[in-house]
Amino acid sequence: MINVTVWNEFIHEREDDAVKEVYPNGIHMCIKDFLGVNEDINVRTATLDEPQNGLTDEILKTTDVLIWWAHIGHDKVLDEVAKKVQNRVLEGMGFIALHSAHFSKPFTALMGTSGSLCWRDDDFERLWNVAPSHPITQGIGDYIELEQEEMYGERFDIPTPDELIFIGWFRGGEVFRSGCCWNRGQGKVFYFQPGHESNPTYYKPEIQRIITNAVRFVAPKNGFWKIECPNAEISPEARIATLKG
Amino acid sequence: MINVTVWNEFIHEREDDAVKEVYPNGIHMCIKDFLGVNEDINVRTATLDEPQNGLTDEILKTTDVLIWWAHIGHDKVLDEVAKKVQNRVLEGMGFIALHSAHFSKPFTALMGTSGSLCWRDDDFERLWNVAPSHPITQGIGDYIELEQEEMYGERFDIPTPDELIFIGWFRGGEVFRSGCCWNRGQGKVFYFQPGHESNPTYYKPEIQRIITNAVRFVAPKNGFWKIECPNAEISPEARIATLKG
Amino acid sequence: MINVTVWNEFIHEREDDAVKEVYPNGIHMCIKDFLGVNEDINVRTATLDEPQNGLTDEILKTTDVLIWWAHIGHDKVLDEVAKKVQNRVLEGMGFIALHSAHFSKPFTALMGTSGSLCWRDDDFERLWNVAPSHPITQGIGDYIELEQEEMYGERFDIPTPDELIFIGWFRGGEVFRSGCCWNRGQGKVFYFQPGHESNPTYYKPEIQRIITNAVRFVAPKNGFWKIECPNAEISPEARIATLKG
Amino acid sequence: MINVTVWNEFIHEREDDAVKEVYPNGIHMCIKDFLGVNEDINVRTATLDEPQNGLTDEILKTTDVLIWWAHIGHDKVLDEVAKKVQNRVLEGMGFIALHSAHFSKPFTALMGTSGSLCWRDDDFERLWNVAPSHPITQGIGDYIELEQEEMYGERFDIPTPDELIFIGWFRGGEVFRSGCCWNRGQGKVFYFQPGHESNPTYYKPEIQRIITNAVRFVAPKNGFWKIECPNAEISPEARIATLKG
Repeated sequence: MINVTVWNEFIHEREDDAVKEVYPNGIHMCIKDFLGVNEDINVRTATLDEPQNGLTDEILKTTDVLIWWAHIGHDKVLDEVAKKVQNRVLEGMGFIALHSAHFSKPFTALMGTSGSLCWRDDDFERLWNVAPSHPITQGIGDYIELEQEEMYGERFDIPTPDELIFIGWFRGGEVFRSGCCWNRGQGKVFYFQPGHESNPTYYKPEIQRIITNAVRFVAPKNGFWKIECPNAEISPEARIATLKG
Repeated sequence: MINVTVWNEFIHEREDDAVKEVYPNGIHMCIKDFLGVNEDINVRTATLDEPQNGLTDEILKTTDVLIWWAHIGHDKVLDEVAKKVQNRVLEGMGFIALHSAHFSKPFTALMGTSGSLCWRDDDFERLWNVAPSHPITQGIGDYIELEQEEMYGERFDIPTPDELIFIGWFRGGEVFRSGCCWNRGQGKVFYFQPGHESNPTYYKPEIQRIITNAVRFVAPKNGFWKIECPNAEISPEARIATLKG
Repeated sequence: MINVTVWNEFIHEREDDAVKEVYPNGIHMCIKDFLGVNEDINVRTATLDEPQNGLTDEILKTTDVLIWWAHIGHDKVLDEVAKKVQNRVLEGMGFIALHSAHFSKPFTALMGTSGSLCWRDDDFERLWNVAPSHPITQGIGDYIELEQEEMYGERFDIPTPDELIFIGWFRGGEVFRSGCCWNRGQGKVFYFQPGHESNPTYYKPEIQRIITNAVRFVAPKNGFWKIECPNAEISPEARIATLKG
Repeated sequence: MINVTVWNEFIHEREDDAVKEVYPNGIHMCIKDFLGVNEDINVRTATLDEPQNGLTDEILKTTDVLIWWAHIGHDKVLDEVAKKVQNRVLEGMGFIALHSAHFSKPFTALMGTSGSLCWRDDDFERLWNVAPSHPITQGIGDYIELEQEEMYGERFDIPTPDELIFIGWFRGGEVFRSGCCWNRGQGKVFYFQPGHESNPTYYKPEIQRIITNAVRFVAPKNGFWKIECPNAEISPEARIATLKG
């Protein structure tokens, strides 16, 4: 069973009627709904305005995969919480950063780069699958079309992805590394660009399929690890010499 | 001309007689001395106890390559200074993290990982050159031997290097990714493991050659860049349409 | 069910008594035996002296993972067979190259490099696990010790691995990238260095665990693909325009 | 001085009037002309119909960078010549594969993959610079526009590039990894997609700038190396023990 926590700042959906209409219960509930139908996935949600931004130690310790949607509330996330999220990824937790989370504290902390890009509202996007044998693209064809999505364009300030999964094409003329994987510590990170708050992107079956695939892909397969820096006082060779003593 | 700033916490060499004997003027001055003989390199130093840790905006703006040695003073580096260093790397500045700088604020911020490893004092190291055609290994043969060096062993918690240059072999039985390059933003980062404060590592000609090569390699070749996230309000395609009127 | 074919040149074990004593039925049968106990793995073997080197189109088409052990018979492998193996990997088949297969025709064809290295008989090896959360290292601790193994040392002429899993330490003083993964086409390749013919390496439980893990890791998850270079005569944008009429 | 050999199959320009009109002396002469104005670059050409396809041992030995344009003549290149080119790259020679050379013998041999892609004649391309601090993009802005170029689209069957430099956007709706670098052995490879024979792409100043930059980037910096697989009979540790005798 994979324990997923879907985190959302949950601001636009409460403050902006146009967004509320698309996601009346918040983006996190939409994601929870489509993930929750899977028997191997157990989902809960957390939001910015909860104590500790909804991410107490207890919650983090019992989360295998954390999904993050945020935009105008990046600065309101507690530094301490962002640091704990980063560390939990290094220990093994999977992390999926959606859309405007390119600028979120946990994502930029894990990347080491600014996450900057260029952008424009309301474009048509075609997402090209450049890793057709990757677990994240199971069930996805050559490309997906999104009638309306915010344009995110290069240069995207990220480290070279360990795996590039999708490249986005925008009718306005831009391209984007729209789906990227990185290993950080013992954890896996997936960034996925679609999902502007005013577009119904997370209702699209292909998008749901990709996020579901990604949950399974970034989920820890080998348990969790402690970050430590041990003094190997007795060297492996000394240990052997002693045994042979 | 490459403007290099050699930064050192400069604590061990003042507080520990054994270290003072090896580096009477500090590790930074030893590095300054061997870099300074090159006509294309202009060197200055900065230390922890100077105002702004010696790294004012003016200094950073006129630094092409920043070399960083630190160990027990990591926490004393101002968060604000570490952040400025990180950002300057993203804008194009080269960064060379030496030895115990694996745990320094700028290095771990650029990596996104903990930088943890295992360690032990006083071992014999053989550094294998696994990238013999790389600019950093010009003039270096198959391997270098260091009679006495602190052992740093795997697992080293770093993102997969963009380029792996050296692998260290320790007589006690460990291995280490001892020389690694990463691109971050528009800047290049090189981590180089040798250089324990009580060992005369930085006097070795091969080590000096590697650091000198690295300075030239990480120096910006294409100027500096601004980190920005522009609204591309007029798309490239709209611009063309307008031109064609 | 993963269909594995274990390919062995099967020469040393028939011609050299010392080797025959270690692997009386051939290395392939030893590998078949330990893989065969797994309920999700179906194993058969193939050898150099069979028609088509044991790798007919029918066999290749029904192989999910091909394991390759070879040494002195590299040149005897038919070019046509090596090419078919390469193409089948590009279509999705997993490929595990063991030990001296670093010089085999399929491996070097998939890499594009020579596969050269330096070597010496009879050393002690300690294999360090540098990817502890990777599927291939499930159940494996910090390192494995091999009392007697052929030394393979750097520089190993391979492309930068997509994932570096093990680094080998040899008592004689060398290091080696002993476990490496690459993606090629839709297939995955794993190279694993231990397994000299005269050492009982493949009887070690940890080595068996690694190879078993690797079989599951490189097995195709998304089916097989055709290599083709289609003329996309009607562009995606033209198709949309047509639909909209 | 960088010695460049520009290789061209030189078929279209002699057999097809439309192409002849664009490149009356052949694509190779156009490239020779713009490279030749650089004081640090020494250029000659070679073509398919010369003895040994124009690439004798003597020519290869005195070539630092080989540029390759080919399309309908891939199969006519001698296997032996392709193999020598590949080996020379492994020894240190830079290799630039242009446009339809994605299917050439030397390029696919160096990659280990098929090089397949999807294609369509006559589209508008916008090449996005995703590595603005890379030596290859010096002097190039955010993007380049090509009024008319053959569409090459994903999925491009290549190994993950060591460095991704350009992503192409095509008005018809496709994207492409249009500029990619790989290390192979001691040599560097750059693939660059623009350059269809009937389009005047190689006359564009930005394209000329990129190819000139690339020549300097892939040129060997550290000399040439022999491919060998030495028996390290005396281990480094034994050598030390002997010295200490």
